[in-house]
Amino acid sequence: MAIVVHKYGGTSVGSPEKIRNVAQRIKKVVAAGNQVVVIVSAMGHTTDELIDLMNQITDSPDPREYDMLVSTGEQVSASLLAMALQAMDCPAVSLTGGQAGVVTEDIYKKARIKHVHLERMQKELKEGKVVVVTGFQGIDSKGDIITIGRGGSDTSAVAIAAALKASVCDIYTDVDGVYTTDPRIVSEARKLKSVSYEEMLELASLGAQVLHPRSIECASLYDIVIHLRSSKNETIGTYIKSAQAIDKEAKKMEQKDTVRGIALDENIAKIGILKIPDKPGIAAKIFGALAAESVNVDMIVQSMHSDKSLADMAFTVERPDLKKAVKVTEMMGKELKAENVIADPDVCKVSLVGIGMVSQPGTASKMFAALSKNNINIQMISTSEIKVSCIIKKEQGKRAVQILHKAFGLEKVS
Amino acid sequence: MAIVVHKYGGTSVGSPEKIRNVAQRIKKVVAAGNQVVVIVSAMGHTTDELIDLMNQITDSPDPREYDMLVSTGEQVSASLLAMALQAMDCPAVSLTGGQAGVVTEDIYKKARIKHVHLERMQKELKEGKVVVVTGFQGIDSKGDIITIGRGGSDTSAVAIAAALKASVCDIYTDVDGVYTTDPRIVSEARKLKSVSYEEMLELASLGAQVLHPRSIECASLYDIVIHLRSSKNETIGTYIKSAQAIDKEAKKMEQKDTVRGIALDENIAKIGILKIPDKPGIAAKIFGALAAESVNVDMIVQSMHSDKSLADMAFTVERPDLKKAVKVTEMMGKELKAENVIADPDVCKVSLVGIGMVSQPGTASKMFAALSKNNINIQMISTSEIKVSCIIKKEQGKRAVQILHKAFGLEKVS
Repeated sequence: MAIVVHKYGGTSVGSPEKIRNVAQRIKKVVAAGNQVVVIVSAMGHTTDELIDLMNQITDSPDPREYDMLVSTGEQVSASLLAMALQAMDCPAVSLTGGQAGVVTEDIYKKARIKHVHLERMQKELKEGKVVVVTGFQGIDSKGDIITIGRGGSDTSAVAIAAALKASVCDIYTDVDGVYTTDPRIVSEARKLKSVSYEEMLELASLGAQVLHPRSIECASLYDIVIHLRSSKNETIGTYIKSAQAIDKEAKKMEQKDTVRGIALDENIAKIGILKIPDKPGIAAKIFGALAAESVNVDMIVQSMHSDKSLADMAFTVERPDLKKAVKVTEMMGKELKAENVIADPDVCKVSLVGIGMVSQPGTASKMFAALSKNNINIQMISTSEIKVSCIIKKEQGKRAVQILHKAFGLEKVS
Repeated sequence: MAIVVHKYGGTSVGSPEKIRNVAQRIKKVVAAGNQVVVIVSAMGHTTDELIDLMNQITDSPDPREYDMLVSTGEQVSASLLAMALQAMDCPAVSLTGGQAGVVTEDIYKKARIKHVHLERMQKELKEGKVVVVTGFQGIDSKGDIITIGRGGSDTSAVAIAAALKASVCDIYTDVDGVYTTDPRIVSEARKLKSVSYEEMLELASLGAQVLHPRSIECASLYDIVIHLRSSKNETIGTYIKSAQAIDKEAKKMEQKDTVRGIALDENIAKIGILKIPDKPGIAAKIFGALAAESVNVDMIVQSMHSDKSLADMAFTVERPDLKKAVKVTEMMGKELKAENVIADPDVCKVSLVGIGMVSQPGTASKMFAALSKNNINIQMISTSEIKVSCIIKKEQGKRAVQILHKAFGLEKVS
């Protein structure tokens, strides 16, 4: 008897009717002779509503109490799904993260899962029940409720799949797979049959919000295949697995896709600190101060001025951190006697991702040429073995994605 | 350092603003040098909303999943109250029933509390924190979440007060005490300074919905004084304590109040089963069949017909049980060859309650006289040592309460 692990996101369990649909789907999988464990997120906007209530109480919630509060959302959807299954004569039981044996670090709000104790889940499975587990949470050594960061239900699902030695973790969401780029931007965007962990990680980190990056790391670590698919239909979605496994399947093909996907991140802002009297350690000072304020810095460009004694520095931060980052940077600017600090919220990051790029050195220059031919000015560039990212004007972001999607022929089935 | 136990009902924590008010009140009690444990209900209509969601999923919810679902309401209000306290620089921690050590029987939905393990609460109190505990719930031996019946937060509060050896349990609600009768019916209704457990139990069971009967039983068992009061002001409410304690305080008074309060229960219905061929065991048959269907029967009157071979039987049930009760009674009526079964939903029960009644035999006849003088017909009567109840027409209920309140001089301060 195979163990099947499903995870359903907030929109998939957003109403009693949708919960019944999910139950119907699970019942079929049970009828086909499988043991099923289901991980659920909170219904629809429940978490946001709870946070809204919280914001009416306090500006600086205690992380422990935050976890106590928001973990209730998943408890509601898990119990409702168990009831919906029972109403269809499909035995089921809901378990909180703690009851399911999910033990985390003692860090509120963003703990990592340390271990999954299987006793309770195995007992319930043996009794023929579908086990519905609250995603996004576990307990720490004190027995306190701990959440593992927003979007963490994906990670819960993969960790539980790994502990149960399931070979696949089906993650159901409101999109039906991973596309070469956002289909709302490029109508010819093509669904990928499979994508490697590394590529998916880059795509997820670069703005494709279909999967939580930590869940991909976890899947990669335990070699769990993630099947990302839609809860609205039975269509096969996208398999996220190791590059080796993908290579093996594709061994007959001469040439692999160089570029697999294009991501657009509009949630960033750029800060420039200009004409800093150059001396060793200025970068360390600036980024040390930002790190001390928990500002996550992404791309960094340092350039020499025509006057060799002066340096310019530019970097990007996440948009919500801009105000805080500017404040810190202005302080450091004064200390370092820089001429001035400029903040530019009107930028975006467009990125090409593909494992094949490492062996195709022409990819980056082809990208730059396509953009410049269309009068899109590149402000900053960053490259890694499997991606090239450019910072451009925000208003040009969607057009850039369309141009690149065409330039790299991503609409064609490989 | 004294331990103070407060309980706040759903309306008292019904909004972020109200939660802040509660926090403010608690902060004062802490500032006065007390250790404080607070038990909270779910915010406003949260529990009803969760049950409404549930009803959209299933008609016959599994009790275990029901408990999993509805227990989230208290977890939300407890964490929000802890945050509100912290925002006022008052250290606090919220605990689920399970975390607080409330262990119940292994019976979902209506377990009794078996034990309260104090370790965690005492640790948090020692660290100078206000401990906020979710009412209405605990865990069983399997670690599953168990609720203790609706309104059970009162019982949670009293049980925790007993375990902590607190002398008083302050129960805050939206009324400011126990009145001689419902002030919405009789504007001269007078707030009682104190009332005995026995009287309060009768008043609560007879329709005065201010306190959960089980909480009174529990308080009586452990001799915990309940101070029932309003969360909207600082006014002293009503003390609920042992008759002995009340006697002691009142020792200088020659005469005690005979009647302490009047309760009206409009949530009942009457069933008559007429002209049953009389033979031994007909009552056992009828009420055995009703008990088998979990119908709670309250008053029973059996009377002989003029034709001595026939008996009539009348009894009252809770209004929501009427349909089911009629069905069972009609079946039994056929079996027993009764002439017919009549159902009357248009009745109510008006009751006098007072410990002094046992030594004042005239009370019942004074009640009957007052009612008959005002053309209110009594359909059924039941008496105990501390109460007299009459079933009358529903439309006459409120007027009957007004008449009796005046007849027994309850508006006068004793």
